[in-house]
Amino acid sequence: MGSNFQPLPGFRDFPPRERQVSRYLFEAWTAVARRYGFSEYEAPLLESAELYLKKSGGQLSDQLFRFEDKGGRDVVLRPELTASLARIAAAQQREYQKPLKWFEIGRCFRYEKPQRGRSREFYQFNADILGESSPSADAELIALSIDVMRELGFKEGEFYVRLSDREAWLAFCEDRGISASEVDAFLQVVDRIERESERKLGELLEPFSITLESVVSFIAEASKEPSPNLAAVLADLANRDLDRFIQVDLSIVRGLAYYTGVVFEVFDPGKALRSVAGGGRYDSLISIVTDGSSDLPATGYAMGDCVIMELLNETPGPLAQYQSWLQRQSTCDIYVVIADESQRPAALKLVSNLREAGLSADYPLAAFKISKQFKAADQTLARFAFVVGSEFPELKLRNLNSRTEESIAPNTNPVEVLRARLDEPDGPLIA
Amino acid sequence: MGSNFQPLPGFRDFPPRERQVSRYLFEAWTAVARRYGFSEYEAPLLESAELYLKKSGGQLSDQLFRFEDKGGRDVVLRPELTASLARIAAAQQREYQKPLKWFEIGRCFRYEKPQRGRSREFYQFNADILGESSPSADAELIALSIDVMRELGFKEGEFYVRLSDREAWLAFCEDRGISASEVDAFLQVVDRIERESERKLGELLEPFSITLESVVSFIAEASKEPSPNLAAVLADLANRDLDRFIQVDLSIVRGLAYYTGVVFEVFDPGKALRSVAGGGRYDSLISIVTDGSSDLPATGYAMGDCVIMELLNETPGPLAQYQSWLQRQSTCDIYVVIADESQRPAALKLVSNLREAGLSADYPLAAFKISKQFKAADQTLARFAFVVGSEFPELKLRNLNSRTEESIAPNTNPVEVLRARLDEPDGPLIA
Repeated sequence: MGSNFQPLPGFRDFPPRERQVSRYLFEAWTAVARRYGFSEYEAPLLESAELYLKKSGGQLSDQLFRFEDKGGRDVVLRPELTASLARIAAAQQREYQKPLKWFEIGRCFRYEKPQRGRSREFYQFNADILGESSPSADAELIALSIDVMRELGFKEGEFYVRLSDREAWLAFCEDRGISASEVDAFLQVVDRIERESERKLGELLEPFSITLESVVSFIAEASKEPSPNLAAVLADLANRDLDRFIQVDLSIVRGLAYYTGVVFEVFDPGKALRSVAGGGRYDSLISIVTDGSSDLPATGYAMGDCVIMELLNETPGPLAQYQSWLQRQSTCDIYVVIADESQRPAALKLVSNLREAGLSADYPLAAFKISKQFKAADQTLARFAFVVGSEFPELKLRNLNSRTEESIAPNTNPVEVLRARLDEPDGPLIA
Repeated sequence: MGSNFQPLPGFRDFPPRERQVSRYLFEAWTAVARRYGFSEYEAPLLESAELYLKKSGGQLSDQLFRFEDKGGRDVVLRPELTASLARIAAAQQREYQKPLKWFEIGRCFRYEKPQRGRSREFYQFNADILGESSPSADAELIALSIDVMRELGFKEGEFYVRLSDREAWLAFCEDRGISASEVDAFLQVVDRIERESERKLGELLEPFSITLESVVSFIAEASKEPSPNLAAVLADLANRDLDRFIQVDLSIVRGLAYYTGVVFEVFDPGKALRSVAGGGRYDSLISIVTDGSSDLPATGYAMGDCVIMELLNETPGPLAQYQSWLQRQSTCDIYVVIADESQRPAALKLVSNLREAGLSADYPLAAFKISKQFKAADQTLARFAFVVGSEFPELKLRNLNSRTEESIAPNTNPVEVLRARLDEPDGPLIA
């Protein structure tokens, strides 16, 4: 029986209270993206499997929701957004002046073992800059990634950005004789360097004839002497006073094979190694996706909704900011109490006038006791209630916080009185 | 090659210009839902096939995106939202005071032949009231359906709502000896009465031993003498001055089997029979979905994004309103032109200050010619541009509409000057 009430394993329901969490994130994401001059786009949730498998390395292939549709097409629910974006940007690039600064907030799907901070269906915020190869584009996205954290209330010391450059790794591979076809596999090992034991890493590195020691010492040295790209990014961020959030750390390579240059991840300093967002440059992807018929340098950033909400719930400042926001989320401006059921027609007219004036108004759908109506009014978090009773056309306006009441004379426009009261801070009304 | 640029057949890409259409609809839907005191929720996009097949009549089963996931589960991409909502409401009903007034804007999927006004992936706005059986709940939803159209700029005469009652049809079926197990099939025929020829309808009605004539005359009579439920809905809407949008018309029965009482559809009067939204009461669905362990009266409403945008594009008033909204959608408040590349650090600091003040600011990521920068500024639809040049710390503030310019002295806060200008209507600035 209980199974009928549950979503699929790893999937989440969002009844209104849980939906507030998403809305809070979406508002913060959207606000920062707009401040940075990004335009919103959206892609289909279902794409051809080819786009994800052949074209973008196929690293997520064991986590795909993949099936054959009724037309015999091999399709997938998107596991991430960058392949779709590359396809759309290639199709649209003549329609927009470059660089494109585009953002998206949407769902992605990965068949992973459900666990804390992981969901098979999750929301992801994506911001990408396409058509600009200079490090200033990377810096702009990294600045955005910092401001997303600050928008959510995180302060210096409560997060940091680890900055790296895949080009430095490509040079390392060339130096050490790792062939082009082996580079991806080698970087997959580097990507696991903080998650695996030394013994395991040694084993994983053996096929490349490279010792863990030489990898570790490269990371240390290259992090001390940033590549020209990284130096340019750091200088740009210093002009914005944002370099204080950055740690150059070449151990960051990002999991996906399509990254080509500057890469970065946003980290929680409290729990080592928990990445809450990340991104990087993927200059070859559009050419790969379009079989070479189109080419556009690009850099992207993404944050999911699961890990950031875990971190937010553990960090006092951001949590207090979220809770204060929650308290301001009333489901209406005004609740209309019907104290005398025979006045329902007048109450409906009042509700209708309030809504036409752009206010949000609720009222009892059936003849409930007054105490139940006031309880419903309290649950909406509305600050005010009109009471329509036997003294109609006189009304009462009740402040639900201060529990004070004033009379609205029949010749007064109740909508205007309410508007004035909504603009005032809470205080005792004239009784 | 071209196929790499295209989404799957029947799916749509939403690059920024196309995304504006969705945003316009979402803003209108959200505004009306909030004015009516509805709270937002969201459900998973993937559900067990059982929820849709066994539990809700299975009428959409030939249009399902259905597959087996990696765990061997029989799953579907949701074709509509009501089954998920019933599941969630049953699970959550003790957590919220009833009636629940919940809304959602999300994607649904149907494998249909792609055609004008139909897409295999579409957005749907859902608003539902659960836990209230009185016709006042139906009236509240029908009022909302009218205000959604008015919010989009449709006036009286540019749309109307056809109102019906399945209970009247159940009484008809009982009178004519149609057994309970045949009712759904019979109502499916009634649902097609305006789309099929008389001959075809006669054939379809034969198994029920009912003539088309008797159906047509029942519709005419029952529409003239509304059932008690319909009379209550009409009286409620009359109190809001909204009954003028209603036509009682018993030929409306709605396609899905789960409807039990008052049903309605919003129509375009220009093209006969084009329904742009609809809804109705489904008092048994929660009991069906929960195998009888839960029960909640419910009434719902849904509008998709495809048909309404077709109608909007053909209707001058709503189209003009949309176009005027479009013109106000700048991608930033201010564009910072870098006239002297050596001043880029100062420009970045200015951009950073503008954004920290909550303004939306964009700037050139590379050293472009000034003419290209102003072209980029124009494309953002920003009203103003700062020009950072060799005279820095003096700045120029340019009004991009009036093509006038003023100097900002070094000891002035440019953010405050801009704020003041943004609050002023456009006019010549002091040169």
